[in-house]
Amino acid sequence: MLLLISGPVATRPEVRAAMTVDIAPWDDDTRPFYVSLRHRVLAIAGGVEGEHITLPLQGCGHFITEAAIRTFIPLGGRLLIPATGAYSDRMTRLAREAGRVPVPLAIDTQRRASREAIVAALEADPSITHLGMVYSETGSGVVHDVPAICRAVAPLGRRVIVDAVSAFGALPFDLSQHPEVDAIVFTANKCLEALPGVAFAVCPMTRLAECGGNAGSWSFDLTDIYTHTQRYQEGSARFTPPSQVLNAFGVAMDLFEAEGGQPARLARYTANMRTLYDGMVGLGLVPYLAREAQGPIIVNIHAPADPAWDLKQFVELLKERGYLISNFYNTEKPSFRVGCIGAVTPEDMRGFTRSVDAVLHDMGIRRREAA
Amino acid sequence: MLLLISGPVATRPEVRAAMTVDIAPWDDDTRPFYVSLRHRVLAIAGGVEGEHITLPLQGCGHFITEAAIRTFIPLGGRLLIPATGAYSDRMTRLAREAGRVPVPLAIDTQRRASREAIVAALEADPSITHLGMVYSETGSGVVHDVPAICRAVAPLGRRVIVDAVSAFGALPFDLSQHPEVDAIVFTANKCLEALPGVAFAVCPMTRLAECGGNAGSWSFDLTDIYTHTQRYQEGSARFTPPSQVLNAFGVAMDLFEAEGGQPARLARYTANMRTLYDGMVGLGLVPYLAREAQGPIIVNIHAPADPAWDLKQFVELLKERGYLISNFYNTEKPSFRVGCIGAVTPEDMRGFTRSVDAVLHDMGIRRREAA
Repeated sequence: MLLLISGPVATRPEVRAAMTVDIAPWDDDTRPFYVSLRHRVLAIAGGVEGEHITLPLQGCGHFITEAAIRTFIPLGGRLLIPATGAYSDRMTRLAREAGRVPVPLAIDTQRRASREAIVAALEADPSITHLGMVYSETGSGVVHDVPAICRAVAPLGRRVIVDAVSAFGALPFDLSQHPEVDAIVFTANKCLEALPGVAFAVCPMTRLAECGGNAGSWSFDLTDIYTHTQRYQEGSARFTPPSQVLNAFGVAMDLFEAEGGQPARLARYTANMRTLYDGMVGLGLVPYLAREAQGPIIVNIHAPADPAWDLKQFVELLKERGYLISNFYNTEKPSFRVGCIGAVTPEDMRGFTRSVDAVLHDMGIRRREAA
Repeated sequence: MLLLISGPVATRPEVRAAMTVDIAPWDDDTRPFYVSLRHRVLAIAGGVEGEHITLPLQGCGHFITEAAIRTFIPLGGRLLIPATGAYSDRMTRLAREAGRVPVPLAIDTQRRASREAIVAALEADPSITHLGMVYSETGSGVVHDVPAICRAVAPLGRRVIVDAVSAFGALPFDLSQHPEVDAIVFTANKCLEALPGVAFAVCPMTRLAECGGNAGSWSFDLTDIYTHTQRYQEGSARFTPPSQVLNAFGVAMDLFEAEGGQPARLARYTANMRTLYDGMVGLGLVPYLAREAQGPIIVNIHAPADPAWDLKQFVELLKERGYLISNFYNTEKPSFRVGCIGAVTPEDMRGFTRSVDAVLHDMGIRRREAA
């Protein structure tokens, strides 16, 4: 079964095989490995050794996003969140329930967010200290130009938290060029093609040192994770980490580097997306996004107008042919979605396209235009 | 390498082998499996179907402990925490940083906590709504009589949060007999002999329904996890779970049930502990706890008085012989500690004892009495 979803993604068997060992996380033979993971991730983020640090956190993307909000924004602090879609909604809820004040900025969810609108919103409200920005909005498939947005925001003296959960490792980001960024957060199981169970933030150390006492949660205090790293032997974890998941992450890093790093991964995912997008158009289906707004991570396709359309049945019939896609959608109108990330190639996308055509035939769907 | 630690424990190869598959957590073929895990865990806890529910949370034991504190105790609420050792200290810090008020109760860390002292402390301070109690204190090795303490506390109208992280699955607990318990919390990677990355709380549903709005954290809101379970298809997860870890957990449940459940596991761990305890005494070493206070989970041994003692070297030499023990200790005086839990048998403990003897000889340690 090939997973064509936004994550947890399809992984290589070598990655999964690294899960089958018992590991003592604090062992002197394990710690140097954990240190090496931190430095390898830092390099992908464009972090500067001695200025930035990678902080791992057990759990999922929501956890690391909440941790970054709690650590860098004090209770009652305000952050602007451009409403890119399902994942900006999630950041908004995480902030609000943590007692921070999210200030939503309505945008067209089918286009890249306008730098000018974000700058104007920040200029209009000096009490907003932070911008919380989703890099790749999984809900829509739009990739926002976060590096350019960061550059536009920097002169205003505002800080940025980047949700790069479905972006990191494929979309470029160079922390060394972005002193305005407090944290870029992501998980192992998206574009890094590892397994779920651990998330990461890469942050400037001076900011971590300044922000002690903000978090209101020991578990989610990135400053405490940082302090622990400085105080104890490098590679030490505060709490039991998912050791097997981290071991597999090391193999995923080997494969990432062997492939040619972020540029190579972006190239493969872009080829996956184009093959898929063209394939769906060729079948008479209508992608949710215009070609120029379509990012390389996830493609949403409008549900066909035919009354025989049934997402559950469509998903089940594709499974019988070896492809697993999401059985839900996050767009306003009904759609189905296909992930372009993971251990997946354009050849896989061609096979998938043929299977979609066959399944639509089997379902008796003639009207393929958008519902 | 055999892990003789308090967790993540040594696991069976069948458990680890279940980590090597790609899984879509929300897939209709996966959800019934997640539902089944919840019910199997509920049965171990003595939970009543329709009254109690198992709530999984990504991450480690600290996370589920913080989640239980946040969910059941409002901001500023007070909980009594008998100071059993390192893990009561951790519960205290989790509560304090979450804005709750931990009230420590000093106790002798080398004995079982006195019910009378706990009852007296609660009677003396009616503003304390909760007791936070560690069942098996990994720092010392003492197992407290939590069922009896719960029964003593119930008539006072106080609620209990049980930290059963290194107890659940081996030490008995029957939630059906404890209406005063708000949550019993634990992880997969201790006595259930699965892998790290997921934690659980078992809670009464009426209390979950009452406690919405307390948490001050979406990620750690057990009421929200409960509500999500009720609102969406059973088996649905709010956020990406560690799918491979959960798959392995299912195999660990199979093995747990095949072994004979909690009584069989307690019997094996008790046999492990006795073999180890007697073995260490036979070598002239001095256990940290008197025999009557020694629980079956973890044994601390006083560091030998000999000036040649060196914990790091001792650990390294044991590793060369295939045994991995902790390279740190949580007791007041120097010690080394050995876990009796995991896929480990009394025969393993006999082999370990022989290796300890050999290593002490190799290190030139003659004075084996307590330092």
